[in-house]
Amino acid sequence: MKNVYRKTAFPVDQARTYLEPGPIVLVSSQYGQKKNVMTMGWYTVMEFNPSLVGCMITAANDSFELIRKSGCCVINLPTYSMIETIIGIGNDHGSSVDKFKKYQLKYSDAHTVAAPVLDDCYANFECRLYDKKLLNTYNFFIFEVTYAAVAKSPKYPQTAHYRGSGLFMVSGETASYKKLFKRKDL
Amino acid sequence: MKNVYRKTAFPVDQARTYLEPGPIVLVSSQYGQKKNVMTMGWYTVMEFNPSLVGCMITAANDSFELIRKSGCCVINLPTYSMIETIIGIGNDHGSSVDKFKKYQLKYSDAHTVAAPVLDDCYANFECRLYDKKLLNTYNFFIFEVTYAAVAKSPKYPQTAHYRGSGLFMVSGETASYKKLFKRKDL
Repeated sequence: MKNVYRKTAFPVDQARTYLEPGPIVLVSSQYGQKKNVMTMGWYTVMEFNPSLVGCMITAANDSFELIRKSGCCVINLPTYSMIETIIGIGNDHGSSVDKFKKYQLKYSDAHTVAAPVLDDCYANFECRLYDKKLLNTYNFFIFEVTYAAVAKSPKYPQTAHYRGSGLFMVSGETASYKKLFKRKDL
Repeated sequence: MKNVYRKTAFPVDQARTYLEPGPIVLVSSQYGQKKNVMTMGWYTVMEFNPSLVGCMITAANDSFELIRKSGCCVINLPTYSMIETIIGIGNDHGSSVDKFKKYQLKYSDAHTVAAPVLDDCYANFECRLYDKKLLNTYNFFIFEVTYAAVAKSPKYPQTAHYRGSGLFMVSGETASYKKLFKRKDL
């Protein structure tokens, strides 16, 4: 990994700008001395303010317990250029491999939570567990985004969107249709 | 709308192929004589089998009550070529406008639910309300996909992915990385 981004704080209520299009993301977490990172495709924005994101994290993943116990994680947005790392992280189990070492992931302390922030990713959304009502039945965590950092450039990164069966859709251009919208708050 | 698709039944446990990449979708519903259609961007796949999809549908939307009362809807996948219809449907309120007439939406009966299927969309996912535990607190419906129909061609349609503020990301190519995956069931 050799991405070097200059990132700045980004309004948490605008997290949708980067998450709503549906890119695959990397979720990093830590509990005590254990830290891990996983690949995630099943999540959705749920609210602007508080800034909520609902995430499926299977209990079979090592990250599940780290996040449940620590009550926090970071949702990191990788670019398509990181596709081999994205897939590798999804292949490996945190219990048998130190994925940070194996994939040479540089990381920093988060601003608001106790979980590693992935430096090579385009954006980082620090998350605190907000509601665990669906945790037992569906492994569905509802997080509040407590801090966001986004790269200054490019404005919109090329992202990878998973279809299952090893297939990824690669994001294309972003176009403005602002003039067609009656409500400006959507 | 002039799309003419030849659609065939599609395995419901593979709904992710088209929904996981995160395209904006059109949700159609009906209760008694009232029917409606809305634009939706906040949803996620939650399970393969049963095939579950979690969806945020604000109570302020006319569709909310139709879906809550009828317990079903259809998630229709429009292509980018329908962008003006997608935005128009998002602008209008079902209480004051018949969106089916205004946007000349052709529709058919569903196979498994009492809700209109949008013929001009690339794919249709018929949904039955599966769990309403988060309905009061978050307006979050968990649906089971009970039947899916997908166009035979093209294999992957060009879709629109919303970023907020009138901006859409347009989907690009689909590439296979199957060889890099250790587990073939992901």
